[in-house]
Amino acid sequence: MPFKRFAIGSVFRGERPAKGRFREFVQCDFDTIGTESVLADAEIAQVIHSALEGAGVLDFTITLNDRKILDGMLESLELSGRSGQVLRALDKLSKIGPEGVVDELQKEHDQGGAGLSSDQARSVLAFAETGRGGVEVLREAEAALGSNPHAGQGIANLRTVLDLLDAAGIPQDRIAIDLGLARGLDYYTGIVFETTVKGWEKFGSIASGGRYDNLASLFTARRLPGVGASIGLDRLLALLDEAGQLKSAATTAPVLVANFPGTDPLIPFRMAARLRNAGIGAEVYPDPIQIGKQMGYGSSRGHKLAVIVGPDEAIREVFNLRDLTSRQEDKGLSWSVLEDSVQSALQILAQEGHRS
Amino acid sequence: MPFKRFAIGSVFRGERPAKGRFREFVQCDFDTIGTESVLADAEIAQVIHSALEGAGVLDFTITLNDRKILDGMLESLELSGRSGQVLRALDKLSKIGPEGVVDELQKEHDQGGAGLSSDQARSVLAFAETGRGGVEVLREAEAALGSNPHAGQGIANLRTVLDLLDAAGIPQDRIAIDLGLARGLDYYTGIVFETTVKGWEKFGSIASGGRYDNLASLFTARRLPGVGASIGLDRLLALLDEAGQLKSAATTAPVLVANFPGTDPLIPFRMAARLRNAGIGAEVYPDPIQIGKQMGYGSSRGHKLAVIVGPDEAIREVFNLRDLTSRQEDKGLSWSVLEDSVQSALQILAQEGHRS
Repeated sequence: MPFKRFAIGSVFRGERPAKGRFREFVQCDFDTIGTESVLADAEIAQVIHSALEGAGVLDFTITLNDRKILDGMLESLELSGRSGQVLRALDKLSKIGPEGVVDELQKEHDQGGAGLSSDQARSVLAFAETGRGGVEVLREAEAALGSNPHAGQGIANLRTVLDLLDAAGIPQDRIAIDLGLARGLDYYTGIVFETTVKGWEKFGSIASGGRYDNLASLFTARRLPGVGASIGLDRLLALLDEAGQLKSAATTAPVLVANFPGTDPLIPFRMAARLRNAGIGAEVYPDPIQIGKQMGYGSSRGHKLAVIVGPDEAIREVFNLRDLTSRQEDKGLSWSVLEDSVQSALQILAQEGHRS
Repeated sequence: MPFKRFAIGSVFRGERPAKGRFREFVQCDFDTIGTESVLADAEIAQVIHSALEGAGVLDFTITLNDRKILDGMLESLELSGRSGQVLRALDKLSKIGPEGVVDELQKEHDQGGAGLSSDQARSVLAFAETGRGGVEVLREAEAALGSNPHAGQGIANLRTVLDLLDAAGIPQDRIAIDLGLARGLDYYTGIVFETTVKGWEKFGSIASGGRYDNLASLFTARRLPGVGASIGLDRLLALLDEAGQLKSAATTAPVLVANFPGTDPLIPFRMAARLRNAGIGAEVYPDPIQIGKQMGYGSSRGHKLAVIVGPDEAIREVFNLRDLTSRQEDKGLSWSVLEDSVQSALQILAQEGHRS
């Protein structure tokens, strides 16, 4: 302890499946068990951030709240006994709108509501609605609720998380606070995470989680506090696809080594092995067909460079290096500089790609 | 086309499950569709080789055969019409032994045998038993069967595969020929692969496959030749575990950044982010507990180095770099050389590990 785990695999939905909500779906989970440290909270947000950046998601917001702030707010309104119903109503804000939430908060218990007075309902709603933004939201909450010990703890915790994420170099506009965010009511006890892609909020959260310090108490007397989150891979892929951000590539290898008609195939095979040993992905075209067709295959498949050794080049122990995008070719390079030439050409292409 | 695919995932067994033969198991598949090129055959063996090396399997043999050689042998004995029964008997060699195979070959059709004469059965067995070894086996087969066009094709194909694998730098003792190898009788049409770990042959093949030029003909009139193989991940893991070769590590990050009591946690958090940005895996200990306990956790978890900033070091903007194995510590290194110091220390450790 502390124990960290991560897993990518199938999970199964207990509730009714629906469009985009499959019975079986793929989740990327990451959790830290055995510590209540705020560093573990911040690290979960860092993992969400790195994973989405790594997956090429262009612009997203990780929204944070802390369950303790909501608890403190309800205590200050003397509504602690009704927190379940209140938070359930609040959780529907994006679906049923503010007036819907006020209605639901005022409904009697036997109708599934929280039985709040009109003033109480308006206060709860105002708290949720004004509680969205950056660090200034925490200052306002501190002024309003800081004297409540639960709220004070939650506010201090979120403030430290913001500082830690800033220290880790995560851009501030990637992180938002939403004091009305009320998910996983039954098990989250501290920080709560939700992540949306800018302009694609209608897809819902693609990475969610929170701190669950009591969850394991169902199964063991040992105290096992934990914090974690999951990326919903199917939903993320569906979103990227619809947003046109899903880049498909038939290959991850930057280099195609041509299989020139009349050249001993041992030559390209050996060259591909040399490139791979140097850490450069390479594939050999399997059949010695017309070279133009091999080049067409290479560029349509996403290879960046082609290494070509025709029968003349084989005799001279040289190769031609072709840029499959610009169609420019460096001719007559010595076999002895194969790895270096390909490496430099790829670096130049990467820099050009960066500039364009 | 040619189309290459690879996938790691669950597959399901139709036959009766048994110990180590689960109903659902995990396979790593790789296939090339749309070419009959021998380069594609050789590449499949290369993938098996790199994957097993990459997985840390110490010593293994990829055994090759070509279905066409078996076909040619049966033609030369005028047994083509009985190839199914003959090959099925041969496939049991490792299980029922040579005399068992001879018995089975001589059994009548209605008893599930091939109905061979005693001489024919002995010839088939001799072919299989003498057909194991290196390239010399192909020379002998050429002398015995080379005039048969099928056998000749199969022999030439295997010889080219051996040359290609040699050109790709695969050690010759990793590759073996077994002319009696008869697996996937119903679908393989050319090369056949099987892979065993030296000393652990009883576990059976951990990576198998072959060329299946007619398999798709069940579903389409389009000609879709293919070659591929699969690594049986569960079996490989079971083998490595039993062989004591399964190295478990609780972390892949070489560096633990300590959370020194009294030091602002923003400092270790920032350092870990800097290390990760430099491509060096790093984790921060979440709780500011006694530093000795943090070091014990780091070494038991498999971290190699610890970066330590106590309150004094924080004021001086320096850190201590501790080797968690030797317990030696470089003290008072400037924050500005964090990435370089850690990088060099890791390189030195890697070289020492290589020598030991």
